[in-house]
Amino acid sequence: MINLAIIGTNWITHSFVEAAHATGKYNLSAVYSRKEETAKEFASKYEGKQITTYTDLNALAQDKIDTIYIASPNILHYEQAKLFLNAGKNVILEKPSCSTVEELDDLFKLAKQKKVVLVEAFRHIQEANFKLLKEKISDLGPLYGASITFAQYSSRYEKVLQGEVPNIFNLEMGGGALVDLGVYCVAAAVDLFGAPTSSQYYPVKIATGADGAGRLILHYPNFTVHLCHSKIYNSDAPSEIYGEKGTLIVPTITDIDKITFWDPKKKSREEVQGVKTPEKLNLIEEAREFARCIEDKDEAALGRLEQHSRDTLAIMQKVRHDNGLVFPGGK
Amino acid sequence: MINLAIIGTNWITHSFVEAAHATGKYNLSAVYSRKEETAKEFASKYEGKQITTYTDLNALAQDKIDTIYIASPNILHYEQAKLFLNAGKNVILEKPSCSTVEELDDLFKLAKQKKVVLVEAFRHIQEANFKLLKEKISDLGPLYGASITFAQYSSRYEKVLQGEVPNIFNLEMGGGALVDLGVYCVAAAVDLFGAPTSSQYYPVKIATGADGAGRLILHYPNFTVHLCHSKIYNSDAPSEIYGEKGTLIVPTITDIDKITFWDPKKKSREEVQGVKTPEKLNLIEEAREFARCIEDKDEAALGRLEQHSRDTLAIMQKVRHDNGLVFPGGK
Repeated sequence: MINLAIIGTNWITHSFVEAAHATGKYNLSAVYSRKEETAKEFASKYEGKQITTYTDLNALAQDKIDTIYIASPNILHYEQAKLFLNAGKNVILEKPSCSTVEELDDLFKLAKQKKVVLVEAFRHIQEANFKLLKEKISDLGPLYGASITFAQYSSRYEKVLQGEVPNIFNLEMGGGALVDLGVYCVAAAVDLFGAPTSSQYYPVKIATGADGAGRLILHYPNFTVHLCHSKIYNSDAPSEIYGEKGTLIVPTITDIDKITFWDPKKKSREEVQGVKTPEKLNLIEEAREFARCIEDKDEAALGRLEQHSRDTLAIMQKVRHDNGLVFPGGK
Repeated sequence: MINLAIIGTNWITHSFVEAAHATGKYNLSAVYSRKEETAKEFASKYEGKQITTYTDLNALAQDKIDTIYIASPNILHYEQAKLFLNAGKNVILEKPSCSTVEELDDLFKLAKQKKVVLVEAFRHIQEANFKLLKEKISDLGPLYGASITFAQYSSRYEKVLQGEVPNIFNLEMGGGALVDLGVYCVAAAVDLFGAPTSSQYYPVKIATGADGAGRLILHYPNFTVHLCHSKIYNSDAPSEIYGEKGTLIVPTITDIDKITFWDPKKKSREEVQGVKTPEKLNLIEEAREFARCIEDKDEAALGRLEQHSRDTLAIMQKVRHDNGLVFPGGK
């Protein structure tokens, strides 16, 4: 049983804890919040659990817990992860992991020194239907490209239009559409196609100076992948992978409930067999895989996840730099 | 009544003639084909019409016809249009007009000298529903960008995979996906948003050396438009226009039968009122407008169409050049 602590007390943290408990592999034993009251309220949702609350991160780092799930504002990820890795705790770090590859490499180096596990909490690439999509790419023959879209209007954009600067659109807090939603598209592309040879980003800059939306072009030796993400408008576009032998289509890249194959020979669409009904707790597949990685110390799987996180972050860091989307500490 | 002649005897020419007749403004009076038999067979479909057939373009240029519709292979457009403009005939030139802006400017100059009309046969931008889409853009407030997609698998690609070089995929014939289907996207973008300040093309090159598909990025001062076209794979993606006050969505950019508005205030979709049932003869709206331009000599409308054709071609010429997609006579 993994003794779990959490940093961050919003809906995503509740979702993770519920999913973690449902795997039967984790036990929530500590909660951190800057305010005691918030921590207690969060803990009160889990009746029958012995949960210690903390308002001091250093104190939490000395707790008996063995794994921490960090879902704080992006800009705090690096320092918090470093603190807990140094204390010998496994770290599940919400995406986006860090601001720079240098920071991330530092964390992975520390995890190895301390013989603990560090993973970035990418939910979608751990889902069975995403893995099926990836499998089916080999049926497409030579690839011609892909379009990956995740564009979902955020009500917090209304605040921006009223002159406010919510965290999610604040560069000082490591915000912006690329690192918030675009990261799902980048992570998907890197998992499906590997690291690109080069990339260009065309952001839509908003009043806060951050990117509210954008298009990212990833070049591979024989094809190009187009990513489209937004928090300031919606898109109905599906995500698609194009090849000589057909097109694979999913309505969304993050919660795949259907995979369609367009067959150029038959000139018709058919549903791909083997698609599973999505899990009710949509973080359960990642929670299960991370438990497996922690318990089995699966070095091969952890190595692949480490490379994936690094490649994903390298793209975002490069294109943020190209476009003057600078976070504190970044160049 | 406009005495019409046609060059080219395929399905698109039949469609144009049927639409032209349905307007009540045109009368097909001459047909050209390299083979007498093909010309006669084409003419035989129009019972009761006095149609002269030609296998010699110079002879046709001396005929009493006053307007020619040119739907020959792309690479022949320029020389043929020049011949007929010189003979004092109005010219309706199938898209893509020419290989270079220099050629097109030459033709427009000649048309002015001869006091005749030259128009490029863009069907889609003349359609009532396209014009309604354009009107609705002003409801979006500041624009954030657009995605325009036209990706339709061509069975002729099977021939390419078997080692053949069909005209449509042959650079020697002025072929490729950009000028064949991409031109609809480019023409739509130029009509909706004007000429871009710069552009980049990411083609998928196929065995013939031509582009079988591609993505074109058009930059405007405050937003970016992404065009996606293909003749070697299908896409289910709609075309979308993004703005502060919502998203406009059409299933296809070429045959708009529905316009959906996604409203960020209501967080819901609604159908835009005023969408017309598409005409059965889908070339009738362009045929009607071209008849009006020819009969009324509407200089303002013709000037706008001229600028539109030039801006559209300038983009394609530039990005073909950037990517080594060279046509005979081009650089």
